[in-house]
Amino acid sequence: MSEHVERPARSLIAQSLTAAEAQTVTQGDGAGIGWYGERPEPGVYREPRPAWSDDNLRALCRHLRSGLFFAHVRAATGTDTSRANCHPFASGPRLFMHNGQIGGYARIRRPVESLIGDGAYDARLGTSDSEAIFLAALSDGLDDDPAAAFARVLGRIAALQHTHGVRAPLRFTACYTDGGNLHAFRWASDGHCPSLYLRRLEAGVLVASEPYDDTGGTWECVPAGSHLRIDRMLRVAVAPFEAGAAPPPRPLAQPPREATPAD
Amino acid sequence: MSEHVERPARSLIAQSLTAAEAQTVTQGDGAGIGWYGERPEPGVYREPRPAWSDDNLRALCRHLRSGLFFAHVRAATGTDTSRANCHPFASGPRLFMHNGQIGGYARIRRPVESLIGDGAYDARLGTSDSEAIFLAALSDGLDDDPAAAFARVLGRIAALQHTHGVRAPLRFTACYTDGGNLHAFRWASDGHCPSLYLRRLEAGVLVASEPYDDTGGTWECVPAGSHLRIDRMLRVAVAPFEAGAAPPPRPLAQPPREATPAD
Amino acid sequence: MSEHVERPARSLIAQSLTAAEAQTVTQGDGAGIGWYGERPEPGVYREPRPAWSDDNLRALCRHLRSGLFFAHVRAATGTDTSRANCHPFASGPRLFMHNGQIGGYARIRRPVESLIGDGAYDARLGTSDSEAIFLAALSDGLDDDPAAAFARVLGRIAALQHTHGVRAPLRFTACYTDGGNLHAFRWASDGHCPSLYLRRLEAGVLVASEPYDDTGGTWECVPAGSHLRIDRMLRVAVAPFEAGAAPPPRPLAQPPREATPAD
Amino acid sequence: MSEHVERPARSLIAQSLTAAEAQTVTQGDGAGIGWYGERPEPGVYREPRPAWSDDNLRALCRHLRSGLFFAHVRAATGTDTSRANCHPFASGPRLFMHNGQIGGYARIRRPVESLIGDGAYDARLGTSDSEAIFLAALSDGLDDDPAAAFARVLGRIAALQHTHGVRAPLRFTACYTDGGNLHAFRWASDGHCPSLYLRRLEAGVLVASEPYDDTGGTWECVPAGSHLRIDRMLRVAVAPFEAGAAPPPRPLAQPPREATPAD
Repeated sequence: MSEHVERPARSLIAQSLTAAEAQTVTQGDGAGIGWYGERPEPGVYREPRPAWSDDNLRALCRHLRSGLFFAHVRAATGTDTSRANCHPFASGPRLFMHNGQIGGYARIRRPVESLIGDGAYDARLGTSDSEAIFLAALSDGLDDDPAAAFARVLGRIAALQHTHGVRAPLRFTACYTDGGNLHAFRWASDGHCPSLYLRRLEAGVLVASEPYDDTGGTWECVPAGSHLRIDRMLRVAVAPFEAGAAPPPRPLAQPPREATPAD
Repeated sequence: MSEHVERPARSLIAQSLTAAEAQTVTQGDGAGIGWYGERPEPGVYREPRPAWSDDNLRALCRHLRSGLFFAHVRAATGTDTSRANCHPFASGPRLFMHNGQIGGYARIRRPVESLIGDGAYDARLGTSDSEAIFLAALSDGLDDDPAAAFARVLGRIAALQHTHGVRAPLRFTACYTDGGNLHAFRWASDGHCPSLYLRRLEAGVLVASEPYDDTGGTWECVPAGSHLRIDRMLRVAVAPFEAGAAPPPRPLAQPPREATPAD
Repeated sequence: MSEHVERPARSLIAQSLTAAEAQTVTQGDGAGIGWYGERPEPGVYREPRPAWSDDNLRALCRHLRSGLFFAHVRAATGTDTSRANCHPFASGPRLFMHNGQIGGYARIRRPVESLIGDGAYDARLGTSDSEAIFLAALSDGLDDDPAAAFARVLGRIAALQHTHGVRAPLRFTACYTDGGNLHAFRWASDGHCPSLYLRRLEAGVLVASEPYDDTGGTWECVPAGSHLRIDRMLRVAVAPFEAGAAPPPRPLAQPPREATPAD
Repeated sequence: MSEHVERPARSLIAQSLTAAEAQTVTQGDGAGIGWYGERPEPGVYREPRPAWSDDNLRALCRHLRSGLFFAHVRAATGTDTSRANCHPFASGPRLFMHNGQIGGYARIRRPVESLIGDGAYDARLGTSDSEAIFLAALSDGLDDDPAAAFARVLGRIAALQHTHGVRAPLRFTACYTDGGNLHAFRWASDGHCPSLYLRRLEAGVLVASEPYDDTGGTWECVPAGSHLRIDRMLRVAVAPFEAGAAPPPRPLAQPPREATPAD
């Protein structure tokens, strides 16, 4: 994992100190990784100290090898700097991480939390808006159709914002998996979504909030309003994504560099 | 404050490592102090590291002087070891701290949290049962009559435990103040309340979970089912305390050592 | 203290996230305060979490009142992010804090530490270059003549750098007090000293790494190569300061705004 | 690793709260693990929070699988509660952990640290006596003959204690490996060594400070004054171990349960 999280010049660990495209420059409110190994449940490491000084994080990235993993650095948007508010969030075999926020969360926290069903409420370990979105989706069909579940939950939250007179936006750039397919989303109620990039390699597919090496051309910017689904065969399908509705994804058109025969 | 929190042989800091009467021997899941100074709102310091190695706590106790302060060491009962779950809890001019627990809290957390009114829900920073009791009381008349408010809330929680088939006890040894009177409570649904002691000095009144010096005789054990009210004139009144009901306190009979004229 | 540390728009707490003049933009490797109260020894609070999310720090600043206090946010320069490496450093009645670094410290750490005398070595709680400078000065006449002691120590360290072929600079913008006079220094071997400002008010004198409010004109930039001495009568004396030598300070010429009779 | 560190009723994580044979009942000053995987250097995770509340530690133990690993819970003996003072200590391919202490360390810290050679001093990240022993041995032949190196270092430290009039004991129950053989030591200047146990299984050899399951009979108590060497073929050799001298180990006599032909 070190090859992706630590070693690149603009690695996630470097981004914690100075991100180029993030909506906050410094993301020093904690970091986390989640990875799949021999068990159905992922391993999770979360720590509120800044990634840039976290030797444990470095050592884990160097010594873990995984075919499917998440890594995140956090810039808090109003909730506590604690382990339980660090991403990724896990529940059983599932992992979720999120850039963005629920605008006006302090005002609508209670009705947002009431979207979490009783069965999932036990898994509410922290107080963040991100965890609430995850658990609300878990209560509303996440295992059956992740995109539809997140679309419904975001639609409900947007409605709550409207009802409570919140004008601050709802922003959702996120990754989700249950250890099988990887789903990535980029959407915001005001069009200003946190960035999302895709890079296809022979050996895998990378999804990142911003390119972390200098091979810029091979990173494809994921447009706002998108849902990416990447299966274990590394096939990428894309679909429009909108709060309140989520059509099924269709295979992504081949990217330029692979479409050129002479390449 | 050091005179009470740090220097005694069996100080709170020493108790964090080995308490004599606590229901858990080690209370290493954090510590906190709250104190009143020039502002109506108390100052609060909370830290999840064990008190025994907390140099900040020591320094604060040495350098703060206050006519009314709280100090607490925590043994977690199932919720996260984080700052937001450390005692004392504060809201405006109020301070609250608690030994004990809501048995079966994981099963009834949601209905317990629903006892917190919308106005107080903003102040829900952590995930602990203790903070939930405080905020539920705050939503239900705490400012008018603390004992009645806590009694009502405990009654409701006991009913929730019953409804959900929880047999584990509800235990509540606690201190509350709004900067004026100090209220201390000792009650448990199964009679096994965490201990509570009172010591009357010329210059003040001490309330503690256990005597912290060797002048044992001057510490009065507060009986189970009690509410103590101590006013700024250091007058102590006592009343029976029971979940669901709370009669007004009456002046406490003089303790033996002061009642004896020849003393 | 809140009036200086927390409330200004460009307060130290705000600077922890985005400093305007610091040599590193983010100073998220911890924070600390030291203050004098009723005891000869100052109180000290140090915490490795970023200042911007530290509720304890905020509460302390709001509830402490002191005639002489230090506050610091840290950007680590190679040593561990731990409490013991946070500033200010204290020993008996003394407080010290430092912006800057010993270039090539990893290569000359052992001979630098050997400048600390046996009597002061006990107070070596961390591993930072800043603490080493403080304790070396403490071993070499700090109590008699702070400027001369720091000048000698910096001279020795510069010689060690030279001997070991270190070309990275030695930079020293620092504050020191024993509870009486306040001494501030600004010097660097390469002329690029961390910034230092002075502001004279009716009720006191402020020394800061950068102006933290918008009354820019009233902040005087302290020139490189200076030693400021401020006594309890708020008289400010200034002297040239150079590693290896330190002449006695002389009264500072009145600043323009006070020199104008019509002011 | 979970099978050994987390799941047993008296696991290391449980021991952090209540150890049966340790010289301090509570070992709540941090925890750490080190493990060998695909790289010559071990992975290391160290954290100053108590093991009992460390979800990261639990997750790592569940998701790491290693043929050779260390796990430790710390009871501090005077030095800072920080990551850098948590065990195990690593340098290149080496891992070291220690129960015990250098009596009077505060008085002889400087001469003890002077036993660390210049080449190893860079690796001095913390301030503990345990790390100093490790780095001193690393400077004095650890790679050639671990037992001889530790014996020499302990002999030098005992001499320093004598010279400085320290009567407090020197205690050393420790494990060391470079990824090849495992070396375990049990020795104390006063005969009161921290406990050490050995258990031989079909699939491996366990060395622990105390038995952590109820199969008590199969745990062999390692006598005071011993050096165990366990090679990758799981052969166990034992030798007397004494500060100042260390003879070569010889194969350990078969333990009773294996010595019985009918077994």
